[in-house]
Amino acid sequence: MNEKVYRTELTPVSFLQRSVSVFPDKIAVVHGDRQYTYSEFGARVNRFAAQLRENGLRRHDRVAVLSPNTPALLEAHFAVPAAGGILVAINTRLQSQEVDVILKHAGPKFLFVDAELAPLLEPLNTAGMQVVRIEDTGSDTDPYEQFLSAGNPHPVVSWLEDEEETISINYTSGTTGRPKGVMYTHRGAYLNALGEVVHSKHSSDSVYLWTLPMFHCNGWCTTWAVTAVGGRHVCLRAVEPSRVWQLMRDEGVTHLNGAPTVLISLANAPEAAPLGRPLTITTAGAPPSPTIIEQMTELGARIVHVYGLTETYGPYTVCERQSDWDAFAAGDRARRLARQGVAYVIADPVRVVDPDMRDVPRDGATMGEVVMRGNNVMAGYFGDPEATEAAFTGGWFHSGDLAVWHPDGYIELRDRAKDVIISGGENISTIEVEQAIASHPAVMEAAVVAMPHDHWGERPKAVVVVKPGTSVTAEELIAHVHGRIARFKAPDAIDFVDALPKTSTGKIQKYVLREKEWARHSSRIH
Amino acid sequence: MNEKVYRTELTPVSFLQRSVSVFPDKIAVVHGDRQYTYSEFGARVNRFAAQLRENGLRRHDRVAVLSPNTPALLEAHFAVPAAGGILVAINTRLQSQEVDVILKHAGPKFLFVDAELAPLLEPLNTAGMQVVRIEDTGSDTDPYEQFLSAGNPHPVVSWLEDEEETISINYTSGTTGRPKGVMYTHRGAYLNALGEVVHSKHSSDSVYLWTLPMFHCNGWCTTWAVTAVGGRHVCLRAVEPSRVWQLMRDEGVTHLNGAPTVLISLANAPEAAPLGRPLTITTAGAPPSPTIIEQMTELGARIVHVYGLTETYGPYTVCERQSDWDAFAAGDRARRLARQGVAYVIADPVRVVDPDMRDVPRDGATMGEVVMRGNNVMAGYFGDPEATEAAFTGGWFHSGDLAVWHPDGYIELRDRAKDVIISGGENISTIEVEQAIASHPAVMEAAVVAMPHDHWGERPKAVVVVKPGTSVTAEELIAHVHGRIARFKAPDAIDFVDALPKTSTGKIQKYVLREKEWARHSSRIH
Repeated sequence: MNEKVYRTELTPVSFLQRSVSVFPDKIAVVHGDRQYTYSEFGARVNRFAAQLRENGLRRHDRVAVLSPNTPALLEAHFAVPAAGGILVAINTRLQSQEVDVILKHAGPKFLFVDAELAPLLEPLNTAGMQVVRIEDTGSDTDPYEQFLSAGNPHPVVSWLEDEEETISINYTSGTTGRPKGVMYTHRGAYLNALGEVVHSKHSSDSVYLWTLPMFHCNGWCTTWAVTAVGGRHVCLRAVEPSRVWQLMRDEGVTHLNGAPTVLISLANAPEAAPLGRPLTITTAGAPPSPTIIEQMTELGARIVHVYGLTETYGPYTVCERQSDWDAFAAGDRARRLARQGVAYVIADPVRVVDPDMRDVPRDGATMGEVVMRGNNVMAGYFGDPEATEAAFTGGWFHSGDLAVWHPDGYIELRDRAKDVIISGGENISTIEVEQAIASHPAVMEAAVVAMPHDHWGERPKAVVVVKPGTSVTAEELIAHVHGRIARFKAPDAIDFVDALPKTSTGKIQKYVLREKEWARHSSRIH
Repeated sequence: MNEKVYRTELTPVSFLQRSVSVFPDKIAVVHGDRQYTYSEFGARVNRFAAQLRENGLRRHDRVAVLSPNTPALLEAHFAVPAAGGILVAINTRLQSQEVDVILKHAGPKFLFVDAELAPLLEPLNTAGMQVVRIEDTGSDTDPYEQFLSAGNPHPVVSWLEDEEETISINYTSGTTGRPKGVMYTHRGAYLNALGEVVHSKHSSDSVYLWTLPMFHCNGWCTTWAVTAVGGRHVCLRAVEPSRVWQLMRDEGVTHLNGAPTVLISLANAPEAAPLGRPLTITTAGAPPSPTIIEQMTELGARIVHVYGLTETYGPYTVCERQSDWDAFAAGDRARRLARQGVAYVIADPVRVVDPDMRDVPRDGATMGEVVMRGNNVMAGYFGDPEATEAAFTGGWFHSGDLAVWHPDGYIELRDRAKDVIISGGENISTIEVEQAIASHPAVMEAAVVAMPHDHWGERPKAVVVVKPGTSVTAEELIAHVHGRIARFKAPDAIDFVDALPKTSTGKIQKYVLREKEWARHSSRIH
């Protein structure tokens, strides 16, 4: 306990302790037929923490978990920091070799693995780690349950001395290069969780469906936020649209988070129909098109559009709704809501800067890099001072995202720095082109990438998935785009495909599409 | 700026800066016919801060304000800490001599005084203070406006180095002894403001009516909370029930805070009628009776019952609603809501302890003292290490309030330590007796105090205000009470009066009633 009567170190672990005390008999966690009250949730977390220590956990030891959105992974979000460890929730869609790189880098003392993902570990050397299998049954024969059962159900004594200690390490799902371990602090996680409560409007009435992977930025800190207000977690191993619609109805879901691609799959599911009660969908991970915002709004969802990166605990900005937007036509409102917006209430102001770190004009046209600093920026990359220093050049975290700054102070992403198309010296925002394409009623999803061009250097190429039961030609689509954005930004070519390549968190892997284009080009000109 | 990219000192000043940026054209402050947008509010605060520095403010200098709930006092809540000063908002209902004691103790460099209260200063020596008169007109001839007008409308550079620096000193309206200056920190104010947002459910749609004095715990930090979410402040110089009802209707008020006595005056006003839209009333300052909770609920208000002290930034606990309470009969629900509840989401758990600092049993019967610690406990009493040490005995802040702890973890106040009645060795909670009396339909308000008794030591005496147009006899009231609480707790005597003596914050001054009883007794037996 801190000596000062008026200071307690901030940690999201306290959120669970409070909700266990205030809402002991309320259902905290639902997973299929299993349910845990807050009292049970708390006791399971306490047993988990006690057993970690009992089995040799020392302060700041890493504890890795490789699991879909199960109660075990949720419990780890409290048990590991309560015990004094650091949580490493590993991306479940990685290949065996990629998991190996993370394990070698993080050096966890414990590794909890879901049975479905256990084969990933078979080729790997896990010597030095205590491996515990999660069968996700909740029954006595489940090794994870056996691990818990030996533990003391009372809270362990906290070892936390400073709220700036690391609570978790989240490895970026970077598409290239070695993975980097983003360090979150207890303080940052606590404050960002409160930010989620404020901006997604969580309360003890929240019934939150886990469509967003918990391994992704600790579920944008929603693991901690929903617990803070005594809301209900509805776990979900896999996002199947029909199952999601069923759970939304059966469990009385009030909130979910998801990347725009998840929203697209929900909006286009046969089960899609208004729920007849409020549903808040917080979306990020890629800029949602005005089209999908409008579709989900028609289905009765209130869209909270946020933006951030793994390095910012998930969301850093929110597209704050202005009261006069309600009077706008649906399409106009959706276009406003498609902007990434302004900093969270608990964050420092976001900036868009030129290469000399000067603010770009707020003209809605000049592109610059998005930079952030403050309490919901990572403490650095684990064991990687060089990468940390590079990311923090000039005293700001460099997002690598390009945006324009509107006169009203809202930012709007234009591209990842590496995705932008430079055609005849002009920057073309792939997002802008994609949104113009997505506004065609036959388009389900679109990705635009640079293809090499002998004269212009690069030109836009679109890869499009068409909605089932509709059709459109490349010529029709290009004509449609011509009416919406500057002519030089329209794609020169369109490929129609059945599905786009995506990362585990639902982001379109543009580098895959781009590499295909450049490979074609190379083979053609050499 | 802090060297760490991932750390920004917490301060509520940042809340205004954000809302100015996000909601520049939104009405932030309404005061009669005057309105300021967030942009104007921000510019006024910046001018104010700049002028404080221009006129000699040094870091941590005190700036006193003696004003009702005017825009000037609200602006001071941001301008003074932005400039690096410490705000001392003085109770407006003090006598001249009491104000003098505070001024001498706080030693402010500036004193802003509302014209209506200026006569209080006439007998006083204000040498060494720059005194600025607030005429509260907003016009160019108002000295306060003239002070602002010379200032630079751009933000001053922050001098804040540590979030634990003092942001304000609030003098307790203690009924006896020398006043004590309760120090709030930037960190505590920031966190408690977020707690208000979560528990009173504030959002950018909030229209907050200032029925609670801003000088009282900085308006329970609601000055900062409503600004954080970009809500609207509706100022109010004096709480007249008919004016409050009018403003609630005309301004679309969604939230207000007030002591139970304020609620009683609202519920009994001729204008009282359901508003037809949601209204949240956060109440504290004294335990509200189930009766007034039920009355206000019938008028359509959602009651959030909180409890705390000046030493805890205002509210520390909240009576969290449980979902199964909705199914209860109105009276049962109101009885639950009349309890003081559990710690805020940003607070450490509250405790009820015996004189040896051991937790009392959670039996709903054993009385103990309420103690608190953590981020929303004051940093100490200004310039009074002895009083600070006494208040922090055993590493906890001692509230001086007696409560029972219910099996569900909710605390329920029974008395101020000094108000409890000891009759034949048994403790009698004056609050319990008052609530039994208040449940009679003819009773508007009641206060119970100890009167001396030769045999029992002390016995309860009730002082009652009857509702206009109704009547009840002492015998009828005592019979009513007999049916509700243990017979020995019923008052031996009842006085009917037109009004109860109250403090400036609406608390009943039991010591006044008690002194009268004891004076009678002395004169009788000596």
